[in-house]
Amino acid sequence: MRKENVSEIEKILKENKAQFFLQYANSNDANFYYATDFQICDAVLYAISLNEDMLVVPEMERNRATRESNVDRVYSLNDLNFTENLKETGNVQSALAKTYLEFLKNFGTKKVLIPPDFPSFLSFYFKNNSRIDVEIIDNPFAKMRAVKTEDEIEFIRETGKAVVDGFNYLLKVLKRGERDCNKLRDKLELYFFSKGYLCRNTIIASGERTSDPHFTGDGRVEKHLIADIFPKSKNTGYYSDFTRTVILEKDGEIEDMLDAVIDAKNRGISLIKDGVKASNIHNAVCDILEERGYHTLRKKHREGFIHSTGHGVGLEVHEKPSIYNSDEKLKSGMVVTVEPGLYYRKWGGVRVEDTVLVKKNGCEILTKFKNRVDLDE
Amino acid sequence: MRKENVSEIEKILKENKAQFFLQYANSNDANFYYATDFQICDAVLYAISLNEDMLVVPEMERNRATRESNVDRVYSLNDLNFTENLKETGNVQSALAKTYLEFLKNFGTKKVLIPPDFPSFLSFYFKNNSRIDVEIIDNPFAKMRAVKTEDEIEFIRETGKAVVDGFNYLLKVLKRGERDCNKLRDKLELYFFSKGYLCRNTIIASGERTSDPHFTGDGRVEKHLIADIFPKSKNTGYYSDFTRTVILEKDGEIEDMLDAVIDAKNRGISLIKDGVKASNIHNAVCDILEERGYHTLRKKHREGFIHSTGHGVGLEVHEKPSIYNSDEKLKSGMVVTVEPGLYYRKWGGVRVEDTVLVKKNGCEILTKFKNRVDLDE
Repeated sequence: MRKENVSEIEKILKENKAQFFLQYANSNDANFYYATDFQICDAVLYAISLNEDMLVVPEMERNRATRESNVDRVYSLNDLNFTENLKETGNVQSALAKTYLEFLKNFGTKKVLIPPDFPSFLSFYFKNNSRIDVEIIDNPFAKMRAVKTEDEIEFIRETGKAVVDGFNYLLKVLKRGERDCNKLRDKLELYFFSKGYLCRNTIIASGERTSDPHFTGDGRVEKHLIADIFPKSKNTGYYSDFTRTVILEKDGEIEDMLDAVIDAKNRGISLIKDGVKASNIHNAVCDILEERGYHTLRKKHREGFIHSTGHGVGLEVHEKPSIYNSDEKLKSGMVVTVEPGLYYRKWGGVRVEDTVLVKKNGCEILTKFKNRVDLDE
Repeated sequence: MRKENVSEIEKILKENKAQFFLQYANSNDANFYYATDFQICDAVLYAISLNEDMLVVPEMERNRATRESNVDRVYSLNDLNFTENLKETGNVQSALAKTYLEFLKNFGTKKVLIPPDFPSFLSFYFKNNSRIDVEIIDNPFAKMRAVKTEDEIEFIRETGKAVVDGFNYLLKVLKRGERDCNKLRDKLELYFFSKGYLCRNTIIASGERTSDPHFTGDGRVEKHLIADIFPKSKNTGYYSDFTRTVILEKDGEIEDMLDAVIDAKNRGISLIKDGVKASNIHNAVCDILEERGYHTLRKKHREGFIHSTGHGVGLEVHEKPSIYNSDEKLKSGMVVTVEPGLYYRKWGGVRVEDTVLVKKNGCEILTKFKNRVDLDE
């Protein structure tokens, strides 16, 4: 575990009178990867006690886990009773659950803490086969990850610059005349891959079906195009998230919506600073859109602004905090999106999004680009 | 849900006297994606009853889920009490759990089935706040996915051909003189991306650290190189998995190990057919390696052949069945790897792997390439 995170976990274990915090995950799980610095395809047990953190891995991963992870101690299933338990139970998952439980009992464990997504096959087994108390807590690493270190900010800043370069590349391809959404996406994603970024399910969408915010797009580009680009650095693992609506042909309704969304985004960004409540930002964004005559989800509408104002960005493209109707306060060092949008079946959708860094007295936009983009300019 | 899978789920619900089988997942979960045909970034509830299957999604995904998934009915959290529950609980996960439970109760639910990886925050909430019986079963879709349809076989065959082309490309780059593992990996992964395949964490490893089977490799290529390539088609979603050990410089020990591994692989492949026990294949592979004087994990050794003989390949690179010490029988239509390897700290590791299709009287190799690869040939 990173040294700076040890005391937080210690505090949580002591407060909850628990001997372990457990995760069962692979490195696609950002909390696992953040905690262990270990790349692994298959899920393994990660256990943190007051004294040390430990991985329990298959034999084939023992040496690599010892060399490559930042974890204090590595156990192989081969050292524990896994083989015998597999023979006895005839089932890999039962054998794993039994082996892990024996492992925990060896430490005299009376209580373990688990994150919300901890798999039921393990939590049920522990509950049904021991007197160990099993309690769910918010994943402390998710909370830690929300406030970025200097290094992490630099990584997200780098990805943000790559996003802007990539969007400029997309505009160049559009100006050359390419109008097929799938070809535009393929070219853009290949561009990013060649620069060291993984971009998947990039939204390059046009027409009325843009009224579905996550419609990735197909067919030809018509009057307007939504490009929602969220690459992950292959090197650092950090994302950025960015959306612009490109106007190809004047269209009153879409342009009015875009105006309103840009105003709402600017208002949202102007409010972001250390200590502000997430709900204040979301409500200010909704206020502007409602003042302009549009609908919002806070009034339970099914069209208009039908999602949250934003979310954290880091090792995941969607992570804590959520900028929605919660009382959670933003903190310096958080990196969040501000992304109002409007969606009507009759006209289609528009969205404008930046990734910003929360600071003491404001925020810094990490994906700097003009808000309104006209292709013919 | 795909029509051909409906009766299997019905049978399971009836046998277990349950009203629902539940999944809580996003489309990175192959079982969810296989069942719903729906691409979604954030986790949602997928519920299958005797009459229909249903998704419960955020409002912003309602129309897209209706249009793009193969699911019978789509509910939005906006239709249910989510907003009120969020206000009441102040916590997204509690609000989701409460909303889902109310949803299940509306159907008069007395018992639900969940897969092993179902998150504990939901299963605990259901158990603690209702009399609904919650029972874990093996995920039926994981079992269904193990036996491939004709379409799926074609998809995996396509990826297999791409793998062989990609490996030929890698050999060409090696012959041109490139000896940096990271540059070789970057070039190979970019090649695959440009052909429509996503390849990540490709193993291009050399030297003694190849004694860790999943060491991805860095530094210079020395006497031998392990290339373990497992691309996923961006179009179909299906993987193939392939490994060759390339000899650059004669080395007695490594060549002896490679000989043994090739013999073991050929023996494994010769045994694969409908009805054969997985453990028979694994044991035959171990026998050959032990006869040649090498160690195996079945005797609890920490060096030698320290992993299983193979695994299923499909929408996941590791899926059912496992070719290890289980009594499970292979079936026609399964696609599995055969990948013996030998790993010694003193010498490094070698591995040879093919993806094969199980047939009635044998198997078909889907990644055809000669077993022994000498760069100077």
